[in-house]
Amino acid sequence: MPDSSLSLPLAMLLIFGSAKLLAEVCERIGVPGLVGEMLAGAVIGPGLLGWVSPNETLHALSDLGVMFLLFNVGLEVKASELMRVGGTAFVVATAGVIVPFLAGWGILIAWGVPNVEAIFVGAAMVATSVGITASVLSGRGLLDEIASKIILTAAVIDDVLGLIVLAAVSAIARGRLSILDISLTAAMAAGFTIIMAKWGTTAANRILPHFKSRARAEEAEFHIALVLLFALALLAQYTGVAAIVGAFLAGLALSDTAGSRVRDLTRGVSELLVPFFLVGVGLHFNLGVFRSRSTLSLALLILVAAVATKLIGCGLGAIALGGQNMLKVGLGMVPRGEVGMVVAQLGLGMAVITTEIYSVVVFMVVVTTVVTPLLLKIAFPAPAAPPGRA
Amino acid sequence: MPDSSLSLPLAMLLIFGSAKLLAEVCERIGVPGLVGEMLAGAVIGPGLLGWVSPNETLHALSDLGVMFLLFNVGLEVKASELMRVGGTAFVVATAGVIVPFLAGWGILIAWGVPNVEAIFVGAAMVATSVGITASVLSGRGLLDEIASKIILTAAVIDDVLGLIVLAAVSAIARGRLSILDISLTAAMAAGFTIIMAKWGTTAANRILPHFKSRARAEEAEFHIALVLLFALALLAQYTGVAAIVGAFLAGLALSDTAGSRVRDLTRGVSELLVPFFLVGVGLHFNLGVFRSRSTLSLALLILVAAVATKLIGCGLGAIALGGQNMLKVGLGMVPRGEVGMVVAQLGLGMAVITTEIYSVVVFMVVVTTVVTPLLLKIAFPAPAAPPGRA
Repeated sequence: MPDSSLSLPLAMLLIFGSAKLLAEVCERIGVPGLVGEMLAGAVIGPGLLGWVSPNETLHALSDLGVMFLLFNVGLEVKASELMRVGGTAFVVATAGVIVPFLAGWGILIAWGVPNVEAIFVGAAMVATSVGITASVLSGRGLLDEIASKIILTAAVIDDVLGLIVLAAVSAIARGRLSILDISLTAAMAAGFTIIMAKWGTTAANRILPHFKSRARAEEAEFHIALVLLFALALLAQYTGVAAIVGAFLAGLALSDTAGSRVRDLTRGVSELLVPFFLVGVGLHFNLGVFRSRSTLSLALLILVAAVATKLIGCGLGAIALGGQNMLKVGLGMVPRGEVGMVVAQLGLGMAVITTEIYSVVVFMVVVTTVVTPLLLKIAFPAPAAPPGRA
Repeated sequence: MPDSSLSLPLAMLLIFGSAKLLAEVCERIGVPGLVGEMLAGAVIGPGLLGWVSPNETLHALSDLGVMFLLFNVGLEVKASELMRVGGTAFVVATAGVIVPFLAGWGILIAWGVPNVEAIFVGAAMVATSVGITASVLSGRGLLDEIASKIILTAAVIDDVLGLIVLAAVSAIARGRLSILDISLTAAMAAGFTIIMAKWGTTAANRILPHFKSRARAEEAEFHIALVLLFALALLAQYTGVAAIVGAFLAGLALSDTAGSRVRDLTRGVSELLVPFFLVGVGLHFNLGVFRSRSTLSLALLILVAAVATKLIGCGLGAIALGGQNMLKVGLGMVPRGEVGMVVAQLGLGMAVITTEIYSVVVFMVVVTTVVTPLLLKIAFPAPAAPPGRA
């Protein structure tokens, strides 16, 4: 059960009910619904009411939620179209890693903390979390736009780059940096991602129809899709990239073959589980940054830098597409996620960053995630008729 | 994650994949697929391979799975039709409680154990677990048969009766039996169930359209359905009956209003989560009963009694409907579930039953659940075209 002190139905009702209630309230005042769902987590979480706190089961539901979210998005786009924007996306992702890293590192050095601590904060500002952006783009029917395709592709590349940064940073903290080890890690992750993106769809188109036609079970196509989803999420983890990248690649691989039945059934799972991901983001909202005025100042500075550096870095990467698209791409890459928190936790565990700096990083992760849907709503004008939210 | 030592994608792949693989194998040799899914649990569980063991998250996924299963079944039947068979169902449920209790108690007394231990085993043999039967009946399109309606109604009544037996047994074990307390418990549980079954649909028909027409969110109807599901599961728990009875009543309440979209989305969730329930049953399969020949004999004796007494008790309750329906109703009520294990755990915790007797009860619960789909397949001839499995 999501909180050991709550029965399962109570926890489900609290989390799902409050998410949908605040989503509805937000929609009515013109704020994207998923901002409401994240706020619900902040309200019922340890920061405010304390009704629900993060735990193993809630974490699992949240992880499943974001896996299904990315799987859904993968189903909606074509790998071939993403490959076509690969060059631009690579530049976007690379600039979006270098600029935030340097800014985070520079600010902390100027703030007067040790070099290692500054490196960790820089590293925590690197990785984009594509879940929120993907949800907004899919929900508003914008996945066909060139900016959306660049964002998705850049986010996948960003994940591989983030992995390299994470490996490098932990090696530095441990005091031994092996270029060979890091190159191997990078090659494994990049190899898996490129192979799946390039040949996944073709392989799925050839192999899956055989399974489908032979299976006796009802809804066999959906079962095969789920097995592929879990298998690629697992393989992604083994090669070092995030499970959600595997989920996205599984969706991509099936985007040609999956029928409307598979999409409807997947949607049902997403509708149930995605709120657990969004509420989970809000649960991490903490008041630690308000403890002292200097911490709050640093938190706000880091937050502004986190937004500005992705905007500038990723935006410049997409300069060939013109101003409007630069803004869209930059904004779409703003949300940070779990990886940022993982870097900060790693630093905390190794005692190279303080709890003060840790709360600053968590604040940055949560707030960049919450504000992005608002900023995207401004940057992407509404299409004629909004199709389904993933 | 389902096993603390496994990553989430690995646990999901192992559990979901093995369930669907063995389901497919079983279907091909003419055995119902859900038997295969339960066997998968026994194979990957602590009894055999030991890849996965029961834990909090897996338990939550399993509980959600059976809640969605019963919610689905509730959506497929009409409360009014169940009320019509209420009289017969009450007799079926009552006979199906008394006969197994007396048999279990009698066998254990004859076996030479103390009276309290015999009472606990009798009590553990009482409660029918309707999940498996409901899944078989729904999957084979048999919910319209009179026997199916009696089984569902009797299972709900059985749950209330089982609650009374559980309350009485724990009072006896503690040495103070208050008829007033037990009557209050019974009245609360029966009151909730009757009120929801009788007026739930009417209330839902009147109230929900208002919510639906005013909600801004997409898929709002599905969200409202889920909130109702969790709310009634919670209320059910508070009044003392099982959460799945609440889930079933929520489905019943919505059976008039729910559109095909809600049914499709619910189906998606069930397809993902129900295997966790089935695998969860199999995980409890334990080899403890094979430790000594005398334990094995007792286990087999209790198993035969568990099947025979529900067949006879429930079958006789449905005598007015003729032989074929008596057999169907009796078989449908055979599977025991969680409540049996809860009674046994309670007894183990109070040191009134031995671990030997505990393993006998768990064996009985698992095997009655696994054999029922096989027996039902024989008793209910296949309909022309099998519609969707819940």
